[in-house]
Amino acid sequence: MRPSGRTPDQTREITLKRHFTSHAEGSVLVSFGATQVICTASVEKGVPRWLRGKNQGWLTAEYGMLPRATHSRNNREATRGKQGGRTLEIQRLIGRSLRSAVDLKKLGEYTITLDCDVIQADGGTRTASITGACVALVDALRSLQLQKLLKEDPFKQYIASVSVGIYKGEPVLDLDYAEDSACETDMNVVMTEAGQFIEVQGTAEGQPFSRQEMNAMMELAEKGCNEITALQKKALETI
Amino acid sequence: MRPSGRTPDQTREITLKRHFTSHAEGSVLVSFGATQVICTASVEKGVPRWLRGKNQGWLTAEYGMLPRATHSRNNREATRGKQGGRTLEIQRLIGRSLRSAVDLKKLGEYTITLDCDVIQADGGTRTASITGACVALVDALRSLQLQKLLKEDPFKQYIASVSVGIYKGEPVLDLDYAEDSACETDMNVVMTEAGQFIEVQGTAEGQPFSRQEMNAMMELAEKGCNEITALQKKALETI
Amino acid sequence: MRPSGRTPDQTREITLKRHFTSHAEGSVLVSFGATQVICTASVEKGVPRWLRGKNQGWLTAEYGMLPRATHSRNNREATRGKQGGRTLEIQRLIGRSLRSAVDLKKLGEYTITLDCDVIQADGGTRTASITGACVALVDALRSLQLQKLLKEDPFKQYIASVSVGIYKGEPVLDLDYAEDSACETDMNVVMTEAGQFIEVQGTAEGQPFSRQEMNAMMELAEKGCNEITALQKKALETI
Amino acid sequence: MRPSGRTPDQTREITLKRHFTSHAEGSVLVSFGATQVICTASVEKGVPRWLRGKNQGWLTAEYGMLPRATHSRNNREATRGKQGGRTLEIQRLIGRSLRSAVDLKKLGEYTITLDCDVIQADGGTRTASITGACVALVDALRSLQLQKLLKEDPFKQYIASVSVGIYKGEPVLDLDYAEDSACETDMNVVMTEAGQFIEVQGTAEGQPFSRQEMNAMMELAEKGCNEITALQKKALETI
Amino acid sequence: MRPSGRTPDQTREITLKRHFTSHAEGSVLVSFGATQVICTASVEKGVPRWLRGKNQGWLTAEYGMLPRATHSRNNREATRGKQGGRTLEIQRLIGRSLRSAVDLKKLGEYTITLDCDVIQADGGTRTASITGACVALVDALRSLQLQKLLKEDPFKQYIASVSVGIYKGEPVLDLDYAEDSACETDMNVVMTEAGQFIEVQGTAEGQPFSRQEMNAMMELAEKGCNEITALQKKALETI
Amino acid sequence: MRPSGRTPDQTREITLKRHFTSHAEGSVLVSFGATQVICTASVEKGVPRWLRGKNQGWLTAEYGMLPRATHSRNNREATRGKQGGRTLEIQRLIGRSLRSAVDLKKLGEYTITLDCDVIQADGGTRTASITGACVALVDALRSLQLQKLLKEDPFKQYIASVSVGIYKGEPVLDLDYAEDSACETDMNVVMTEAGQFIEVQGTAEGQPFSRQEMNAMMELAEKGCNEITALQKKALETI
Repeated sequence: MRPSGRTPDQTREITLKRHFTSHAEGSVLVSFGATQVICTASVEKGVPRWLRGKNQGWLTAEYGMLPRATHSRNNREATRGKQGGRTLEIQRLIGRSLRSAVDLKKLGEYTITLDCDVIQADGGTRTASITGACVALVDALRSLQLQKLLKEDPFKQYIASVSVGIYKGEPVLDLDYAEDSACETDMNVVMTEAGQFIEVQGTAEGQPFSRQEMNAMMELAEKGCNEITALQKKALETI
Repeated sequence: MRPSGRTPDQTREITLKRHFTSHAEGSVLVSFGATQVICTASVEKGVPRWLRGKNQGWLTAEYGMLPRATHSRNNREATRGKQGGRTLEIQRLIGRSLRSAVDLKKLGEYTITLDCDVIQADGGTRTASITGACVALVDALRSLQLQKLLKEDPFKQYIASVSVGIYKGEPVLDLDYAEDSACETDMNVVMTEAGQFIEVQGTAEGQPFSRQEMNAMMELAEKGCNEITALQKKALETI
Repeated sequence: MRPSGRTPDQTREITLKRHFTSHAEGSVLVSFGATQVICTASVEKGVPRWLRGKNQGWLTAEYGMLPRATHSRNNREATRGKQGGRTLEIQRLIGRSLRSAVDLKKLGEYTITLDCDVIQADGGTRTASITGACVALVDALRSLQLQKLLKEDPFKQYIASVSVGIYKGEPVLDLDYAEDSACETDMNVVMTEAGQFIEVQGTAEGQPFSRQEMNAMMELAEKGCNEITALQKKALETI
Repeated sequence: MRPSGRTPDQTREITLKRHFTSHAEGSVLVSFGATQVICTASVEKGVPRWLRGKNQGWLTAEYGMLPRATHSRNNREATRGKQGGRTLEIQRLIGRSLRSAVDLKKLGEYTITLDCDVIQADGGTRTASITGACVALVDALRSLQLQKLLKEDPFKQYIASVSVGIYKGEPVLDLDYAEDSACETDMNVVMTEAGQFIEVQGTAEGQPFSRQEMNAMMELAEKGCNEITALQKKALETI
Repeated sequence: MRPSGRTPDQTREITLKRHFTSHAEGSVLVSFGATQVICTASVEKGVPRWLRGKNQGWLTAEYGMLPRATHSRNNREATRGKQGGRTLEIQRLIGRSLRSAVDLKKLGEYTITLDCDVIQADGGTRTASITGACVALVDALRSLQLQKLLKEDPFKQYIASVSVGIYKGEPVLDLDYAEDSACETDMNVVMTEAGQFIEVQGTAEGQPFSRQEMNAMMELAEKGCNEITALQKKALETI
Repeated sequence: MRPSGRTPDQTREITLKRHFTSHAEGSVLVSFGATQVICTASVEKGVPRWLRGKNQGWLTAEYGMLPRATHSRNNREATRGKQGGRTLEIQRLIGRSLRSAVDLKKLGEYTITLDCDVIQADGGTRTASITGACVALVDALRSLQLQKLLKEDPFKQYIASVSVGIYKGEPVLDLDYAEDSACETDMNVVMTEAGQFIEVQGTAEGQPFSRQEMNAMMELAEKGCNEITALQKKALETI
């Protein structure tokens, strides 16, 4: 029934490849099926002007897509001279979500920038970005600790994200592009490892959805995030 | 308990003043308490390039804030040379939400632009914008019909929006600025008059939220949107 | 003879509604007939970099128009990514004009920003803006004095503005849109309460104008500004 | 009394050097004393989109300053990424003024662009630009006629411009930088060869000015423009 | 002697991984040692406006760097709102170089866009980009031919590129970052498979260079490009 | 054989007119035949942020073209809102080249900005710019020394530049526009007065070029730069 042959509550194959590039303090290639995102976490001394002297750190995110990450080529945002609304929306979501993973007070006056660059898109780029960025963030925090630059561990909790939706009338987990472009409702969910919600963003592209459908989607999201958190922890077991 | 003395399930006083300015086909001053937004609906012949020849209309939205709509002055976006991420996010939300109110096929090759300009902000500017824009939209569609420019009525359903949140541990309806800036979770909900969901955007600014809290918030949102739709219909009773 | 039925030396009905919005130190809704502008005066501690340490304040102005303030919708300047030449010209004029109203030395290191946002346009938006901004400015200065933040009153003089022109061969006062778009010459005049000139900007859109016509227009402008100053003083009588 | 030793009603030495550069249809180096501006008139087939099919031509102007045309270096507008308010204001003035010199209906579907680039600034760059651009425009129209591309001569009248002001309490003609930066009032006047006004833009930088002062300035402006028109005609006597 | 232990005439390990991402008609991950660039070739129907109706195709290139491709993080160009001078210079170089590889007449009215996005930088990103883009281009041309969209093969010749320089007084081939940032002279050379030059761009960062040094560098470049062309051909042997 | 009738190794008439405008510390009008560029050197106290406290100066360059410096009018970069790739490439080249002329350590904390503005273009604008900017630079350094602001003379060496190319199969020196737009190969060379190379930028627009052709071009460039350096020294003999 699903174009990919998956069962409704089945995610795509999700992989997290750490140390993907060499310069960043954290660098992860995350794949949700054919969706591939390079997530790097960069640590810089100092904080934005409006946080100076407040004795805390900062975490922010940026999102981009290579022009031919998509079926047909999209114009490069650097060439157009500005980031589009969709890009800004996504990078604000990533930043907000991952700030829940870290205690900024314990981070000290460091800024961590999470760059999520999609090299191949097949639906779910924002949920893959959040998932991968969390792993890159952990690596960056570990690097700060290895250098003895922090007094306490600022990491609070794992953050995972997955999309759910109503596709041909049925709630499904982790939509790929074929489903995403045809679904009635698309919902991106960000959860803590304790099973609570950080972000819920549901949009009815076609038919409005009911409370029952919402509940069904939330349940799928819980299952998916649970699995994803396990993969994140697994990926971070080694040094 | 609430700074305004309201009960948890009580909205602020909501008013919808039609024909607020004279040039637009629809023009509404909407107030959610001290939050005031001018919503205009402008009709133009023609559609964007990518819709030409597809025998349908288009509806889009733009959002802005007067620089001193807020407690302290914000820089004017026209001066800064670009709209910020928050602005783009909100205007995308307004546009998506109101496209659910209208059958674009029946609209014919017209573009309706909804401009929501906040003249005074006290929390809930996006939900007030959606609510007011829906009324302005109805007026604009009526003006097209009065001129006999449409074969069929393209209006599908009323769209109302309200915010809900967890404030000091308790679910509350229609947060004002005092609550919004201190709440743990803030959720904007957009609903149809039939009680179904168009958009659900929940963000845990402080503490993550649970399924039960989510359910409680959804119930408040249903109550609020129900009341708001009644106000919209009431406002549109007259010519 | 005039489309509005007014006599050549008659202004439209001019109203000044103070405390129109709640956050700004001064907030005035000014109407010149159907032209309506929200003028706010915002006070901020500090001065621009190039004035630092010079022991004086600064006053600047910004001007905008809601997209549907006009007969047909204009693109939003924030969306286009820059303010147009007409906007920049007008806001420079407002700033220069109102700097004549205040002794910047006595203001101390404060910056006052006058925002003039047209919500409905029917000709004369820049003269209405200057007129309304002057009243908002007085309110802002009063608020500074109430807080005992100034040693001396920096207010020097009232500033009023009105347009004059040659419409169908005859000099007329305070042109509305119907006249403005068809007149031969349009002149914006800014005057002090003592009857002297701050700005005279005359443009022959159609026929060039003669010294005699110029003199006739100047006389009308004097009459108009005189009346407007009286209205400003009247509006500011109350607290 | 004047820093330059001139009498109050004396202009600086004004020269108009035609054919200054070789590619443009009209190219004039205009000097008002030490102020030097390269004015070119470029003819292009076609008109802007909003004039297409209206059977008329168009004339527009652009203004710029070399970064070191001034005492201290100004940032290049191309580097800053936008033209400043002053630049836009001046080029709008030049365009409006010179459109009075030509019958756009008789011009046919050509666009003439007047580029005024200041290579050395010593006050009065906008009046020098208008004066020089008029001569370049005549050369461009002659070139169109030489090629037999026009049925009728679209030239209507000479346009000249000069500044006047109140310097140390006395009305003076054609202010240089030393006067301009210290004067109470500065007025730019654009006139037809018949002695009528196209533009009058007076600004009280210091003291407001009276009707009598205005009259005295207007008289000086008439004298100055009269002399300048004679120089323009003289310069254009040869081929 | 060289930081990497290579001999002066030895390139880094160069690999070309085709079909790296799935959407583009050509997609190559090129590595010059630790320098890694994703090169995609995208085919679109149509040509830029200025080529329409000229019965030929077009080829253009864009270049970018992920923010953390470098030792310390660089601001994202999309965020800054424009591409920097270095970026524009490089993408112009890539475009010019690869246009030598293809007969635009035989390409027909297609546009090929080569996107070179550096995911890890260690010197020589522009030479790696040209080298990889050539392979991606061949794949894109093959895809057009497989679809029988071209009458003739537009491919003219292989294009390879390598850098040479003077490092510690000695000519060396294919500088890595350690050498690049310390060398006296850096030269990028682009060659055809026939051993002729398309581009030679030499810059003395430190000491000027002599004719003899130039000759020595040219010889190294010939050797390097020769080897690289062999690798390109090898990589393209399979389907 | 050459359109201008010159012999293959003959430059155009090259003139260097110092003190061309009055405000800049160095101001030169350089002509390479019909190509005319105003080069000014501006001295400002202070250095860019990233050089502060490093006890050295800075030299940078900007390049522009008047819109009608060319055969047909080019849009003004200030109007388009950004400098094009060609402009950025050229001004980076000018800056790099002239930094070789000066010992930044001996310059002290001054910034010299070289502005090269083309008022008439006929090929070779970048080589004329470098040649003229060098003379303007010497004048600016002399002015600093006359004011006793420097301890030591920071001038290191003369820098000259000329283009060479293959035109109709033959190597030629100093291409004008007629040659430049039709040549197979165009190479810009920047040399020190000691006959060594600072920059070599060769581009095969049509046919690739061989080692022998490259050598022939280099020889012509040496001859040309030699002559140009003599002209620079000659021009600077007087005060």
